[in-house]
Amino acid sequence: MKKRLFTPGPTPVPESVMLKMAEPMIHHRHPEFTELFTRVNNNLRYLFQTSGDVLTLTSSGTGSMDAVVCNLHQPGETAVFVNGGKFGERWGEILRAYGMHAVEVSVEWGSSVSADQIADALKGNPAVKAVYLTQSETSTGAATDVKTIAREVHKNCEAAVVVDGITAVGAMELRMDEWGIDAVVTGSQKGLMIPPGLAFLALSERAWRMTEKSTLPKYYFDLIKAKKAVRDNDTPWTPAVSLVIGVDKALEMIRSEGIENVWKRHDRLARSIRSSAQALGLSVLAKCPSNALTAITIPDSLDAKAFNRTLKNKYGITVAGGQGHFKGKIIRISHLGYYDEFDMTAIVSALELTLKDCGYKFEPGVGVRAAISAFSV
Amino acid sequence: MKKRLFTPGPTPVPESVMLKMAEPMIHHRHPEFTELFTRVNNNLRYLFQTSGDVLTLTSSGTGSMDAVVCNLHQPGETAVFVNGGKFGERWGEILRAYGMHAVEVSVEWGSSVSADQIADALKGNPAVKAVYLTQSETSTGAATDVKTIAREVHKNCEAAVVVDGITAVGAMELRMDEWGIDAVVTGSQKGLMIPPGLAFLALSERAWRMTEKSTLPKYYFDLIKAKKAVRDNDTPWTPAVSLVIGVDKALEMIRSEGIENVWKRHDRLARSIRSSAQALGLSVLAKCPSNALTAITIPDSLDAKAFNRTLKNKYGITVAGGQGHFKGKIIRISHLGYYDEFDMTAIVSALELTLKDCGYKFEPGVGVRAAISAFSV
Repeated sequence: MKKRLFTPGPTPVPESVMLKMAEPMIHHRHPEFTELFTRVNNNLRYLFQTSGDVLTLTSSGTGSMDAVVCNLHQPGETAVFVNGGKFGERWGEILRAYGMHAVEVSVEWGSSVSADQIADALKGNPAVKAVYLTQSETSTGAATDVKTIAREVHKNCEAAVVVDGITAVGAMELRMDEWGIDAVVTGSQKGLMIPPGLAFLALSERAWRMTEKSTLPKYYFDLIKAKKAVRDNDTPWTPAVSLVIGVDKALEMIRSEGIENVWKRHDRLARSIRSSAQALGLSVLAKCPSNALTAITIPDSLDAKAFNRTLKNKYGITVAGGQGHFKGKIIRISHLGYYDEFDMTAIVSALELTLKDCGYKFEPGVGVRAAISAFSV
Repeated sequence: MKKRLFTPGPTPVPESVMLKMAEPMIHHRHPEFTELFTRVNNNLRYLFQTSGDVLTLTSSGTGSMDAVVCNLHQPGETAVFVNGGKFGERWGEILRAYGMHAVEVSVEWGSSVSADQIADALKGNPAVKAVYLTQSETSTGAATDVKTIAREVHKNCEAAVVVDGITAVGAMELRMDEWGIDAVVTGSQKGLMIPPGLAFLALSERAWRMTEKSTLPKYYFDLIKAKKAVRDNDTPWTPAVSLVIGVDKALEMIRSEGIENVWKRHDRLARSIRSSAQALGLSVLAKCPSNALTAITIPDSLDAKAFNRTLKNKYGITVAGGQGHFKGKIIRISHLGYYDEFDMTAIVSALELTLKDCGYKFEPGVGVRAAISAFSV
């Protein structure tokens, strides 16, 4: 049976990238790597829409979140974070692990924080050094308007704006410099279309100044060391060489499509999945949905386990289930990275067949028709 | 030109492993990964010769060194480390980054620390919580007798014995449980024959007890979280999936050869390179040499840069140069991981041709003859 992966990380890796990574190993302190890594660093700046350095860390995305916290702060400082899902909640866990005073802005999971809610939190806590946001909350499929929030934060105080862009970068519009974002992190197995194992991180001038004063202990994630190295297109520690080779190829694909076109494609595919869900009488969890993934609520009348089992075992489709209190309540479908229109018709067709197998009532073909209609909007 | 990699990490990746890693991506929270990771975890215990858990971290080897320090200690505790090369020195840097009192045992780079030197350091510092060693010092090619040192340390005090096994694991005899080693770390791009990006770490019961009292801040490298996850053959964060697939295949190769045979093969190849060097009138830097790599001093009469350039550009061979004050003075040749006898005759032949090109006087063939003779000993 042909298998298809629709999880919001790892996402499918283009065949040409997989084969490139399967070429004989090279050494990272030799010219063949330096040449490639120079190109990677230039293309990462384009991806992040920043003129500053983008650092490549060998870690999962969570490693880069950890790195931001332990490099920006001194113990006991105050920071605001938004708990609107598992990954927003993670910012709070990391802040507390480093002895920070973490002020939680709580929103119902599936909803998105507003600029007003952040402003309120800042009013009550004048010592806030940074605001931690999640542009695309992978656990709920909700998007946060980080552009507006960054503008409002900077109007009113000196706090840095930190964005978890793990499922946003390469999927949704994000202009780090223009929007005044002070830190952006992402992972390799998302919009960047390669396997997990690398994380990427960029800081603004303001954030770099904070790193100079930071007294939290760190070694592997010392970003000042990483910045010095990247100026020579090098890394302080042995990088995950094969993944760097992969990201070079993936970044070339993004550059050649054009970042605005990549964002537009994600918007088109996301809208097609949301239209299909609606046409099938299913509801999308997020009120302000991300273009990286769509979380769809499984109707109470259906057995969620049987649904997922059928989708996977009968039709070869792997999607993600719900996390935390959403376990067994939602499925999360990825349209993040290496997907096109016909991947969307494939997943919607498989959803229709699975719904039919599970005894759900709907007009066959209505989901796929809605998906196709959305492509041309 | 056919290219050959002889660096002590990254090391060559077997073709079958590269192709396995190029297969379509799978998701790490699904049964296909769990099945594979269960096998990996069993085989890692065999590799480390421990009945305890071996944790898989997505990081370079340095990440696992950082993880050991920030999980075992409380700020201000005392630990002994050995500065006999760049990687021993690194233990000291990490200890100090975490606010530890780091007692340095200094040995000339290229020499190995003795059990007596460690005993002296412990006598002068009764509060020592751990002794940090490097079994195979990659910067000099020197080996440390961690078996004897661990026995002597445990006879006299309660300190934990921590071993950087980054270029030792899978190359040199290491029996974690039997020898009473409290922590072992290694990286993926060494004896494990896969690309860089994963690190592996095991702790003894004593070391796990230390983690429970540790108050140093950590999140990504929280080993208690990793231990809980590995009990379910899971990881707390998204692992480098393709590399885990690769290490599964590589561990199967090691298991099928048998770990004792793997150690014997490394011993045989290392002896052949050392014999060749001697026959060619070159000197091996390390007094007690590692079986993972051989550092050979470049004679003063030769231009080191021209030597390396010829080896690389004319013969397609990549070796490692010297680090720190050995820059331009030595070359480091790897026989670590996926190498056999005929790889040794290839590198020695290339060395002979390069020496000849550089005007060095020797009897042609004498190096290769010595290599071949050593195989049958």
